Amino acid sequence: MSSSLDSRISRISQAMDIYPNFPKPGITFIDIFPIMRSPDVFSDLTDLLVDHIKQTHPNVEIIFGLDARGFLFGPLIAQRLGISFAPIRKAGKLPGETLQASFQLEYGSDKFEVQKCSAAKGQNVIIIDDLLATGGTMAAAYKLMKDLEADVLECIVLVELENLNGRSKIPGKVFSVIKRND
Amino acid sequence: MSSSLDSRISRISQAMDIYPNFPKPGITFIDIFPIMRSPDVFSDLTDLLVDHIKQTHPNVEIIFGLDARGFLFGPLIAQRLGISFAPIRKAGKLPGETLQASFQLEYGSDKFEVQKCSAAKGQNVIIIDDLLATGGTMAAAYKLMKDLEADVLECIVLVELENLNGRSKIPGKVFSVIKRND
Repeated sequence: MSSSLDSRISRISQAMDIYPNFPKPGITFIDIFPIMRSPDVFSDLTDLLVDHIKQTHPNVEIIFGLDARGFLFGPLIAQRLGISFAPIRKAGKLPGETLQASFQLEYGSDKFEVQKCSAAKGQNVIIIDDLLATGGTMAAAYKLMKDLEADVLECIVLVELENLNGRSKIPGKVFSVIKRND
Repeated sequence: MSSSLDSRISRISQAMDIYPNFPKPGITFIDIFPIMRSPDVFSDLTDLLVDHIKQTHPNVEIIFGLDARGFLFGPLIAQRLGISFAPIRKAGKLPGETLQASFQLEYGSDKFEVQKCSAAKGQNVIIIDDLLATGGTMAAAYKLMKDLEADVLECIVLVELENLNGRSKIPGKVFSVIKRND
């Protein structure tokens, strides 16, 4: 089982394309879309995430996905688990009663928003996104869940840039499929 | 079978929330996220789309999804069909060699972008998004597929606002699950 898991992680890692200096000098862009170009590799990834959640958080009730690349995985994982999916979006895009949380960008700040109806007090949720870099956006998403009084079982990302130490900003569990140091 | 299909469409339609005058006066916002809050209704929707594609376009090779809400359905449908998924994003977000197409907004214009490697000449593709309104963004996505020399089998949306006549801007087939006139 362990070697099978390792070989799946290896195939997923090898499928990603790395672009130095995109979108600007000094930034290394990790392109996750080639994973979805290969149905077998994409199945490996979703099976791995579904297995992980079933084994470690069988009591999860809602998957929250961050706009936009968390939308690629969140609904798929939620449907495989037979549970709800709900979005965390940039402010201004969700109707009805909402809550907001700010996060820092390189220059200035931005706001995330969630619909109040998307989780009830005490519900068990998992947050999913593609990448954990400096951790600012995931920390804002985590704060929104606490404002909803939901219980965050885990934050799950496909890729964690360990050298940026984003994990230290998250006051709860983090699971990453691929860890990189570049 | 027909009544079963009708009852699925009815459940999907009833699950959506309608917000008049959001995000601004005169606009009626159709909130599709409640569909994903109900695992059974979300399964109805994906089953319906997968059945439709299997029956009418068994030769499809790639699902293209529009950023951001096409990302909610595209990867899920592609994985159910065992085929590739690729993104169409706002310009500046995709690395590598790309193609761009402009589309009009209420004030000014914006650009969509696609990676050149995402489809080869002659490949059979389907474009998916949540909503067909005036048709400007879907027409730009369609143009990008033609620029890639892909064959667009169909453009699929969850909701079509028939009174805005977006279908007339698309030079190919359009399939919508729900048609509205408000």
